[in-house]
Amino acid sequence: MSNLDNILKSRRDTRHFTTDEVPDEVIQKALQAGHWAPSVGLTDATRYFLIKSEEVKTSIKKLFLDYNKKAEELTDNPEQKELYRSLKLEAIEEAPIGLVIAYDRSVLNQFTIGTIGSNEAVKFSSVCAAQNIWLSLTEQGYGMGWVSILNYYQFKKILDLPENIEPLGYFCIGKPATNYNNQPMLQQLHWKQKSEAPICTEIKEIHQINVPDFDWKSENEIQNKSDFNTLLQEKIDSKTKPVGSLGTLESLAFQMATVFETLNPKITKPNIVVFAGDHGIANHGVSDYPQDVTRQMVNNFLDGGAAINVFCNQNNIELSIVDSGVNYDFPTNAKLIDAKIAKGTQSFLHVPAMSESEVQLCFEKGKSIVENIAKSGSNCIGFGEMGIGNTSTASILMSLLTGFPIQECIGKGTGVENEKLLQKQNLLKKALDNYSGQAELMSQLSYFGGFEILQMAGGMLTAFENKMLILVDGFICTVAYLIAFKINPNIKQNAVFCHCSAEKAHSELLNYLEAKPILNLDLRLGEGTGCAVAFPILKSAEAFLNEMASFESAGISRK
Amino acid sequence: MSNLDNILKSRRDTRHFTTDEVPDEVIQKALQAGHWAPSVGLTDATRYFLIKSEEVKTSIKKLFLDYNKKAEELTDNPEQKELYRSLKLEAIEEAPIGLVIAYDRSVLNQFTIGTIGSNEAVKFSSVCAAQNIWLSLTEQGYGMGWVSILNYYQFKKILDLPENIEPLGYFCIGKPATNYNNQPMLQQLHWKQKSEAPICTEIKEIHQINVPDFDWKSENEIQNKSDFNTLLQEKIDSKTKPVGSLGTLESLAFQMATVFETLNPKITKPNIVVFAGDHGIANHGVSDYPQDVTRQMVNNFLDGGAAINVFCNQNNIELSIVDSGVNYDFPTNAKLIDAKIAKGTQSFLHVPAMSESEVQLCFEKGKSIVENIAKSGSNCIGFGEMGIGNTSTASILMSLLTGFPIQECIGKGTGVENEKLLQKQNLLKKALDNYSGQAELMSQLSYFGGFEILQMAGGMLTAFENKMLILVDGFICTVAYLIAFKINPNIKQNAVFCHCSAEKAHSELLNYLEAKPILNLDLRLGEGTGCAVAFPILKSAEAFLNEMASFESAGISRK
Repeated sequence: MSNLDNILKSRRDTRHFTTDEVPDEVIQKALQAGHWAPSVGLTDATRYFLIKSEEVKTSIKKLFLDYNKKAEELTDNPEQKELYRSLKLEAIEEAPIGLVIAYDRSVLNQFTIGTIGSNEAVKFSSVCAAQNIWLSLTEQGYGMGWVSILNYYQFKKILDLPENIEPLGYFCIGKPATNYNNQPMLQQLHWKQKSEAPICTEIKEIHQINVPDFDWKSENEIQNKSDFNTLLQEKIDSKTKPVGSLGTLESLAFQMATVFETLNPKITKPNIVVFAGDHGIANHGVSDYPQDVTRQMVNNFLDGGAAINVFCNQNNIELSIVDSGVNYDFPTNAKLIDAKIAKGTQSFLHVPAMSESEVQLCFEKGKSIVENIAKSGSNCIGFGEMGIGNTSTASILMSLLTGFPIQECIGKGTGVENEKLLQKQNLLKKALDNYSGQAELMSQLSYFGGFEILQMAGGMLTAFENKMLILVDGFICTVAYLIAFKINPNIKQNAVFCHCSAEKAHSELLNYLEAKPILNLDLRLGEGTGCAVAFPILKSAEAFLNEMASFESAGISRK
Repeated sequence: MSNLDNILKSRRDTRHFTTDEVPDEVIQKALQAGHWAPSVGLTDATRYFLIKSEEVKTSIKKLFLDYNKKAEELTDNPEQKELYRSLKLEAIEEAPIGLVIAYDRSVLNQFTIGTIGSNEAVKFSSVCAAQNIWLSLTEQGYGMGWVSILNYYQFKKILDLPENIEPLGYFCIGKPATNYNNQPMLQQLHWKQKSEAPICTEIKEIHQINVPDFDWKSENEIQNKSDFNTLLQEKIDSKTKPVGSLGTLESLAFQMATVFETLNPKITKPNIVVFAGDHGIANHGVSDYPQDVTRQMVNNFLDGGAAINVFCNQNNIELSIVDSGVNYDFPTNAKLIDAKIAKGTQSFLHVPAMSESEVQLCFEKGKSIVENIAKSGSNCIGFGEMGIGNTSTASILMSLLTGFPIQECIGKGTGVENEKLLQKQNLLKKALDNYSGQAELMSQLSYFGGFEILQMAGGMLTAFENKMLILVDGFICTVAYLIAFKINPNIKQNAVFCHCSAEKAHSELLNYLEAKPILNLDLRLGEGTGCAVAFPILKSAEAFLNEMASFESAGISRK
């Protein structure tokens, strides 16, 4: 056995010392040995602190006792607890010299070779120094004991070590009183037996890492939808979060990617279109507001003072205002899209609201408006409306198209108080009873429709054809969706239900459509405000899918 | 100079080897030297893996090149970059033998002497073994080079090392081709000069620790605000929309104006602070993720890859990351706020999670962090958290503070499947049954608290004192709010409950607090993501109050 081997083998973690002093030369020689230890990137970060003061030692001993008590409580086994209590795990007060070996982690503030994989390399260098010191002391006939049972936070505090100095522990140094029969003390005391030989395995082959990289696959290579869906779900699940933990954002991201047919979906030029129209039924007192408010609000939209202006502005959404049939002649205004069918519908209490050719015209105008928006590069369109009296129109259409009794399709409407509800209900019931037309969509729409509602329905069908996301606002907008859905149920794939309004009929209709709205904020304003307010949630879905790191790229353990 | 000193001094971190083979006996003798190294608590946790296969070496070399490129990019100094590029920092393919020295951290699953202050003692034992091996090889005329520039996550993957085996690095072993003029290679190449002598200071006295008492007292200033409230409600109702039709946005606007004490409230410098801490209870299998994920996620936050980064970025929210007590030493990093109390709490299954002075310290640090943010000009702060195991901590605290039975306070947690729920429930029930402390807040927090949770609670109290809006995230954050609320119920005036999570306990807790959350999106990620995603809704409230036209200004008929 070589001289080195003898030193390595006889080095002990010593807790029993004689009272002999330790000459300065011994310490200096040992510290020099530490200094010869490796230093990652030559950072030279190891620092030493010597302690001879009894007062300092007593304070450190107190810290040890505090944490040792805590440690003792960690075992439930009474025998083990008893044995643990009997162990001498330090010699802080007896050992003539205390040494703190520490590292200065501020070296990491500069460019440091060898720390990119793990900055622990810095502390490891100091541990190597500790081992060198141990060996040197052993060779010189002295011993050392490493005390790590300490609250390091308080330890640093009482020693007044700067924030950037991190101690490895407290090291007791002195002349050993025993060599524990040339074995570790814990083995001599039968705490544990150290294994006979080192545990070593040869690694003969590598294990392939599969880092799914979504950019490798071009869109054309995606053979069919199920492959695409599998890849998409994998991409969502690869993000650094528990599977499913982003809830609705995950389903929105999934939908967005399938609608846009790409694993990296991006909303471009989002646009909210507010369709405004007047209703003959408004003359029968179904709203608290006079019909003229439709016109006034269109001007408010054009002047930028309405809620929808504010929210579109907030969220960088383009806003388009359509005159679908307001009972007013607007001056030619570039900001207003003219799709006027007539100056308001007729009152369905007595006659059909519009002719069947006006219904057709509504669908055509709605289609043309959305086609122009799609051509401008938008792939996301929100639908909003304004029209005094249009909740009544919407309630009747809902009742006809879903079969729900009319009283379940009447909410309190925009601004109508409960006292008026019964009156409205009776009026609409009468209108339905008066209807002698066919139970056929075209007839129903012609008798009870509204210009803005039908233009929205036509616009939604066109948005689907153009692979756009369709943002559905509140109750009236959802009735427009219901019409479009009856014509082409596939549009559901593209529809995002932005909110559930305070209109009670709205939540019933959403249930009927098996639609899960994003927001529940008791909004009941219309104008597309629900779409605008919910839009950032959609952007969050887009953002997490495109920008979050994956477990692989961030090097994070999956469960 | 002694024989040992000669070996210590001539040991080199070698990157240049001859093609000479290394006899098996040399390796065996060196590993025996490693085996003689200290082993904390006689845990015997060091593991060795030998590599001779060219294929394996080539794969590891690739990992090195990948990270070395990254390292090179870390310096902006062109001269330094050039010199760095010229350095040979490994000999993975040339050295005949590769060695992986690793430790098995699963030894910590049992009661382990010497690890209560810091479980790093286990890895330090393995570093001592590495140093012994280095010295033995040096004595035998061989050399070793420690390569730490690796993505350890991928390194473990390709070597197929189990989760519990943590490598210290890759060690190249062979016959040295040079001794670099008997000095470190980096010194020979003028990268840096190692200091002449070790840096050693004597510590002669102790420094008194003063943990300042956190001011628990609430501000009891009751002002007559009824005039202000009337004016504010008038302003809201004057906007061009039916009264109340913006639902929750109206109550948010009202709250914002009263908190900021102005009719024209503006959110300035919104900030989300993510507090990260580890939990002793995590060692008992309450989460599907290993504790190390806390550290990994903090790095992900710092790298900008987590969900909260993406959402803050989307919504122009400043993000602050706090190390409240992660079981890891982060490098000094300007982006990380250091408020570390300790490297994780203790497991409350056996002992108090922390001392009462640590509870105080948590409140104090939380306070100081929020004060700094307030001083920076922010009036809106969101609270988020990260900490493997912290749903367990939160569940227990909720049960203690609300009186709900523990089973009603346990959600499925982040990523835990139902099958594990019962086990978790039993464990927490046992912990509660074991508790013999007082039914008094301080004792309960000390026994069952989490560093990040208590820092959040302290921060919320301070945010209230500073008249800030307090954005409350998911379940864990709401438990922090509950603690703060118990101390000062007035904070409710400032609290915005951003979402109701998919954790069933969260909706119960929100009910208990009579809190109405903004979003219901089944989020259950934490990190403050609910705050960030809900933030634009708050901005919508601010925007309509400040920017919408009034009936009067727009010339629109009121009903």
